[in-house]
Amino acid sequence: MSNEWGRHFQLSIFGESHGPAIGIVLSGLPAGFALDLDAIAFELSRRAPGRSNLSTPRREEDFPEILSGFFEGKTTGAPLCAILRNRDTRSRDYSLLRDLPRPGHADYTAQMRYCGFQDYRGGGHFSGRITAPLVFAGAVAKQILRAQGIEISARIASIRGIHDAPLDPLRLSDEARAALCARELPTIDPEAAEKMREAILCAKREGDSVGGVIECWATGVPAGTGNPFFDSLESDLAHVLFSIPAIKGVEFGLGFEAAERLGSEVNDAFCLKDGEIACETNFSGGIQGGIANGMPLLFRVAVRPTPSIAKKQKTVSLSRKEETEISVPGRHDPCIVPRAVPVVEAACAIVLYDQLKEVLSCRI
Amino acid sequence: MSNEWGRHFQLSIFGESHGPAIGIVLSGLPAGFALDLDAIAFELSRRAPGRSNLSTPRREEDFPEILSGFFEGKTTGAPLCAILRNRDTRSRDYSLLRDLPRPGHADYTAQMRYCGFQDYRGGGHFSGRITAPLVFAGAVAKQILRAQGIEISARIASIRGIHDAPLDPLRLSDEARAALCARELPTIDPEAAEKMREAILCAKREGDSVGGVIECWATGVPAGTGNPFFDSLESDLAHVLFSIPAIKGVEFGLGFEAAERLGSEVNDAFCLKDGEIACETNFSGGIQGGIANGMPLLFRVAVRPTPSIAKKQKTVSLSRKEETEISVPGRHDPCIVPRAVPVVEAACAIVLYDQLKEVLSCRI
Amino acid sequence: MSNEWGRHFQLSIFGESHGPAIGIVLSGLPAGFALDLDAIAFELSRRAPGRSNLSTPRREEDFPEILSGFFEGKTTGAPLCAILRNRDTRSRDYSLLRDLPRPGHADYTAQMRYCGFQDYRGGGHFSGRITAPLVFAGAVAKQILRAQGIEISARIASIRGIHDAPLDPLRLSDEARAALCARELPTIDPEAAEKMREAILCAKREGDSVGGVIECWATGVPAGTGNPFFDSLESDLAHVLFSIPAIKGVEFGLGFEAAERLGSEVNDAFCLKDGEIACETNFSGGIQGGIANGMPLLFRVAVRPTPSIAKKQKTVSLSRKEETEISVPGRHDPCIVPRAVPVVEAACAIVLYDQLKEVLSCRI
Amino acid sequence: MSNEWGRHFQLSIFGESHGPAIGIVLSGLPAGFALDLDAIAFELSRRAPGRSNLSTPRREEDFPEILSGFFEGKTTGAPLCAILRNRDTRSRDYSLLRDLPRPGHADYTAQMRYCGFQDYRGGGHFSGRITAPLVFAGAVAKQILRAQGIEISARIASIRGIHDAPLDPLRLSDEARAALCARELPTIDPEAAEKMREAILCAKREGDSVGGVIECWATGVPAGTGNPFFDSLESDLAHVLFSIPAIKGVEFGLGFEAAERLGSEVNDAFCLKDGEIACETNFSGGIQGGIANGMPLLFRVAVRPTPSIAKKQKTVSLSRKEETEISVPGRHDPCIVPRAVPVVEAACAIVLYDQLKEVLSCRI
Repeated sequence: MSNEWGRHFQLSIFGESHGPAIGIVLSGLPAGFALDLDAIAFELSRRAPGRSNLSTPRREEDFPEILSGFFEGKTTGAPLCAILRNRDTRSRDYSLLRDLPRPGHADYTAQMRYCGFQDYRGGGHFSGRITAPLVFAGAVAKQILRAQGIEISARIASIRGIHDAPLDPLRLSDEARAALCARELPTIDPEAAEKMREAILCAKREGDSVGGVIECWATGVPAGTGNPFFDSLESDLAHVLFSIPAIKGVEFGLGFEAAERLGSEVNDAFCLKDGEIACETNFSGGIQGGIANGMPLLFRVAVRPTPSIAKKQKTVSLSRKEETEISVPGRHDPCIVPRAVPVVEAACAIVLYDQLKEVLSCRI
Repeated sequence: MSNEWGRHFQLSIFGESHGPAIGIVLSGLPAGFALDLDAIAFELSRRAPGRSNLSTPRREEDFPEILSGFFEGKTTGAPLCAILRNRDTRSRDYSLLRDLPRPGHADYTAQMRYCGFQDYRGGGHFSGRITAPLVFAGAVAKQILRAQGIEISARIASIRGIHDAPLDPLRLSDEARAALCARELPTIDPEAAEKMREAILCAKREGDSVGGVIECWATGVPAGTGNPFFDSLESDLAHVLFSIPAIKGVEFGLGFEAAERLGSEVNDAFCLKDGEIACETNFSGGIQGGIANGMPLLFRVAVRPTPSIAKKQKTVSLSRKEETEISVPGRHDPCIVPRAVPVVEAACAIVLYDQLKEVLSCRI
Repeated sequence: MSNEWGRHFQLSIFGESHGPAIGIVLSGLPAGFALDLDAIAFELSRRAPGRSNLSTPRREEDFPEILSGFFEGKTTGAPLCAILRNRDTRSRDYSLLRDLPRPGHADYTAQMRYCGFQDYRGGGHFSGRITAPLVFAGAVAKQILRAQGIEISARIASIRGIHDAPLDPLRLSDEARAALCARELPTIDPEAAEKMREAILCAKREGDSVGGVIECWATGVPAGTGNPFFDSLESDLAHVLFSIPAIKGVEFGLGFEAAERLGSEVNDAFCLKDGEIACETNFSGGIQGGIANGMPLLFRVAVRPTPSIAKKQKTVSLSRKEETEISVPGRHDPCIVPRAVPVVEAACAIVLYDQLKEVLSCRI
Repeated sequence: MSNEWGRHFQLSIFGESHGPAIGIVLSGLPAGFALDLDAIAFELSRRAPGRSNLSTPRREEDFPEILSGFFEGKTTGAPLCAILRNRDTRSRDYSLLRDLPRPGHADYTAQMRYCGFQDYRGGGHFSGRITAPLVFAGAVAKQILRAQGIEISARIASIRGIHDAPLDPLRLSDEARAALCARELPTIDPEAAEKMREAILCAKREGDSVGGVIECWATGVPAGTGNPFFDSLESDLAHVLFSIPAIKGVEFGLGFEAAERLGSEVNDAFCLKDGEIACETNFSGGIQGGIANGMPLLFRVAVRPTPSIAKKQKTVSLSRKEETEISVPGRHDPCIVPRAVPVVEAACAIVLYDQLKEVLSCRI
C-alpha cells in the first residue's frame, strides 16, 4: 500500500512539504515502553537541514507533537501518531515551477499520476521532508531494538569517488559508534571526510550537486531472524530503503562485486568462535536465504546527486508543450547524503523490529 | 507476508524442493483472459535445468497442473492455483548434509529459523526451484501486460567481468528481442556470450561457480504508473527481486554509478519527441519519485555465484559442534545466471501488473 | 491490522478520548475530487454529542483539521490525514475509575491487553469518540459514491421493543431520505420516534440506558460489486461494523429470521422490471455469494445499551482484588443509538467505496 | 483480499466445485508441530456430505493431499498447501442451468462479477464445497489452540423454530463436548434433535429446505486476547464467518436481544471467582472492546435455508431476457446446518489462532 508498510510494526505516513503538517501513525508498539524523547530529537536533528553550509539553510523545528498512543511517558499500546508542522516554507519559491518539471525530480511523474492535482509546492508528497516521520519511526524502533541488544549504525562509504576506510562492524567500539553518528560527515577516516567536504563545496560553488554511497549495519541480530522468499530480510529492507527519495541502488554484503567473483571466493565458511557457530567472512552481509545468520547485517545504498541544482537544464513547459530551460531557484542541498544517513538507519530499524515481532509470533 | 505478495495481483507461493509439489495461487486476475499455455511453457523451459552443459542435469517436467480459476481456456476470475510435481529428486544425495550446513546456503539460517524442523532435502523451501511458480505467475502477467502494450525483456549484462555490449531498449526490434530470449546465454553481443560460456565452463572444470549481472527492461509502461513512498516502483520491484535466491544487489538506471556523478550529469533533461514529452537520457531507469516517466523502465540485479560447489570448503558439524570440511555432492549449476533471466523478467511482470491495477483502481 | 482497514481505500485510525487528538489517515483517494466540507461537517454533527437531552452534554467541536492530501479545495491523491483535537474533556471525572473497571466497558480487557499502560481516561482508545474519524472517512466516501449514483441511508429500526414502520428503500423519495437524516431520532414513523424518545428519557430518569437496532441500506450499488469468500460484501461490512463499539449483532436482509423459514419462502425470485433483471423480493439484502445483485443492499445492526449508567453495579477493585460497587460518574448518553446512525452509514460507505475500486481494478 | 485472510495465520483459498481440485495454503504455522491427521480427517468428515438422509448423497473423499510444509509428521514452518481433488461431480447436472440463475444462489451475481466467464458448474467458486479447505485450516488451528488450553465447540441452537436447551459452556464436561460433535444433529437436548430431524425431513419431502441457528463457543481464551477497533475479535470472527456461504447473521453474547434490554440488565458485573476476576454473567459473549475478558467467547450465526430446492421457482433466462420457471435438479441438502457446524468452529479456530499470535508479537 502506497503510504502503509509493515505487518507487525505498521506505519502509515502522510504529508506534503508545504501543507499544514507531515506525520506518521505507528501501530504494533508494545504497551509500557518508556520513550526517550531526547534520543528521538537527536535522530531528527541528524536529518534536519540547516545544520551547516553543506545543507539547505531551510530550518525545520523537527520536534514532533505526539497526538496519541503515549501517556505518562510511555507507549499505551494504541496507535501512536506524531506530526511535524510545516513552517518556514516560502511557498512562493515554487509557484513558477508548476509548469516546468525539474529534471530528475518527481514533478512530471506526479503530474501524470495525479492529473495535475498534486500539491506541487516544494515537491509535495515527494519531498525529502517526508522522510522525517520515517526517522521518527526509526528512532522509536531503535530504542526497542537496543533493549533487545541490537544496534544499528551507518556511515558515508563514498562521495564522488572518495572512499572511507574499510570497516569491520564487530571491531567498532560503542564510543566510536557514538562518535560516528555525531559527525557532520560520518566516516571512519577523518581525512576522507575532509576530502568529501571539499568535493561537496566544489559542486555547490558550481551550482551543482553530488551523490554518494551509505553503508549501514546492525549488530546483535539473532540468527534465525527473517523469512524465506517474499519477506526475506533483503526484500523488506530494500522495500523500505527504495521508498526513500534519491536512492537508486541497494546491495547486501559484497553485492554487485559478488557477481564478478567465484563461488569459492564468496561463500562464507562456517567456523566456531568461542564455541559458537559463526562465519569466517561476511560476504553475504549477514543474510542467507533471507534470514540472519548472526553476523552483522550489512548493506549499502546508492544515493543519487540532489536533482535540484542552480545550473541551467533543459526542460519542457507542460502548458505550452515547448522546450525551454530551467535553473531551479530556492535553497537546496548540494549533497543529501549526510542527511540521508539517519534515514537509512531508520529504515533498517523499522524492518528489523517488524521481523523480530514476526519471529516471536511464530512461537505458537 | 512470508509467502504472499501483492495488493491487486496477489501471489501465495508454496513448496519444498523434495516435497510432493511446489505451486502458487494467483488472485486478482481478470475473468475471461485466454491464457496462452505454450507461452507459459516456454517461459518455464527457459528457467528449467538440464537444457545444456551449463546447468544441472536434473530434469524437471515443469508443465504445471492448473487446479482452479481456469475454465474452457480462459481465466474465470477466481483464484488460479498451479502446481508442479517434484520428480527426479534423488533425496539420498542430501541426507548426509543434514548436519553440515553448506557455506553460502540457507541450511544454517533455516535451521535457526525453523528449529531443525525444516525440510532440509535439496534446500527445501529455500531451493531455487521455488522460483518456477514465480515464472508461472510472471508468464501470466506478461501476457496481460502485452495486451496493454507493455513488453519485458532481460539479458545477461556481465559474467565474471565479461560485459555484454551496450543496449538501448528503444532500438531493439521485436525480432531481436525474441531472438534474445531464445538464446542459451541471452546477450546482445554473441562474442561476449562465447567468452561467458568459457568462463562458466572453466569454473565448472574446477568445481567452482560464477555469478553475474542481469539487466531487465520494460517498454510501454505508461507515464504515471507507480506510487510515491512505500509502493514506489523501485520498492515493489526490489521486494520481489530480492525474494529470488542468490540476488544480492538491485539498481535502477545508473544505480551505484550515479552516486559518483554530478547532478548535472545524471538529471534526465526533458524534451519533446514527436510532440510528446520525453527524456533525452534515461539515467533514472524510467522512474522518478517511484513513478514511471514513460521511458523504458530499466534495472540490474547482481546474482552471486551458485553456493553449491564441489570444491572443499570449511563448515561445522551442527551436532558435534566441530569444524570440518565439505564438498557439496550432487548435481549443481556452475552458473545460475542464465536460468535466472526469466525469473527476473517474471518479477518485473508481476510488479508492473499489480501497479497497473492500482492506478486503474484510483480512477474512482 | 488493529488500526488499519482497507485494501483499496485504506484507513489508519488513531487517538484516545482524552489525549491531544484523534484522527485518521485516508489513502487511495482519487486526485482532484472536490470535497464538500459542509457535507462532512453535517455528518460529524449528526454523530456529535450535546445536541439534545437524549445525549451527553459533553460538547465536541468536531470540525476536523485536514493536515495533508487536500489542496485548493480538492484531494491531491496523496494520503489525507484529518485530526480532531480533544477539548472539554474533564479528565478528573475518570481518575477514580482507574482501579474499578466499569461493567460492560473495555476497562478490564484493556487492562489485560495493555498491562495497565493504556490511557484509561474516558475509555481511551476504546471510547466511542474514536468513531468520529470513521464518520469523517465515511463522509468522504459518501461523496464519491454519490457521484457514482450510490446513496446510503439508515434509520432507527427499533428501540426497547418499539419498532419503526416497515420501509421499502426503493420507494423512499430523495426528500424523505434527506428529512430522515436531519431528525434527532431518524425513523419513518414519527409516532414511533415519540415513543422511543419516551423510552429513552424513562431510562435516563432511572440512571439506566437503552439500546436499539439500526437499519442501513444503499441504493444504486451496481450488480457485480463484491467478492466471493473472504472479501464478501457481508464479510467486509461486518468487519467494519463490528469495530464500532457497542455493536453486538449484524444481519443482512432477513438475517436471523431467515433461519426460521423455508427455502421457498426466502429465495428471491428473479423477474424482469422494465426489461432489466431484478428480484421480486429482497430477503437476501441485495447480496448473493458476497456480491451485490442490484437490489438495495440492506442490513441491520444491534446496538447494546450504553454501558455507562448511574445505577449502582457490582465490580472489583483491581488493586485490592476485592468486590465492590460502582456508580459510573460523569456525563453519558442514555441511548447511543441516534448518534450511531451516521457511524453505521459511514461504515457502509467505506466498504462500498473499497469494493467499487476492487471491481474497477479487475478490469485489467 | 478476496481469497486471502489473516495477518499472522494466513490463508489463501482456491478452487471450484467441478474443477480439478480445491485447496488452501496456510502460512504462519510454527515449525515442528506434530499434526494429528486423524483429527483433521474427523473434522472433514463432519462437514462431508452423504453421511445420512439429511444431506446430499454426493460423496466426497475429503482426505486432503498435503503438498508442502509437512515433513516427517510435523509442520516445517514453510507454507502448508493441502488440496482435495474433485470427484463424483456429474457436471452434466448443471449444464442446463448456465442460462437460468437459481434464486437465492450466486449464479446471477457471479455472472455480473465475472462477465460470464465463471466456472458455473455446481456453483463453481461459490459452492459450499469451498468450505472444506476452511475446515482443514480450522482443524490445524484447533490442534494448536488445544495445546494452549483453548477448546472450541458448536451446536445447533435452532432449526425451523425448534430450539435446543439452554447451555452454559463452563458446565459442559469434556465427554459431553466430545459426544456433541459426534452427533448427526449436535444438540444438547436429544428431543430437540429429533424434532429438528422431522422438520428437515418434512421440508425434504416437499422439495423444500430449512435453515437454522448455530451457536459456537470457545473456552480457555486468555483475557486480553484481541484488539480494539478494526481487529476486534467480533470484526475478525464476523469477517471469516460471513465468508461462509449461506450465513446471513452473526451476533455475540445476547446479540440482537441486548438491543431490547436496559443497560443495567446486560452489563456483565465483575466478581471474584476463586480469587480471580470474572463476570457474573456473560451477556457480552466474552468480549468487551473487541478483547476477550476470560469468559467463554460465544456467538451465534444465522444459516439461511439451502437455496437449491426441487420446488418450482420463478427465474429469468439470461440469454433470452425472458421470465421462466426452474426446478433445481440434482442432489442437494434439505438442510445445510449440521454440515455448517464444523465450518463455524473452523472459522472460530482460525481467528483465535491469528489473534493469539498477534498478542504474542506485541510482547516486544
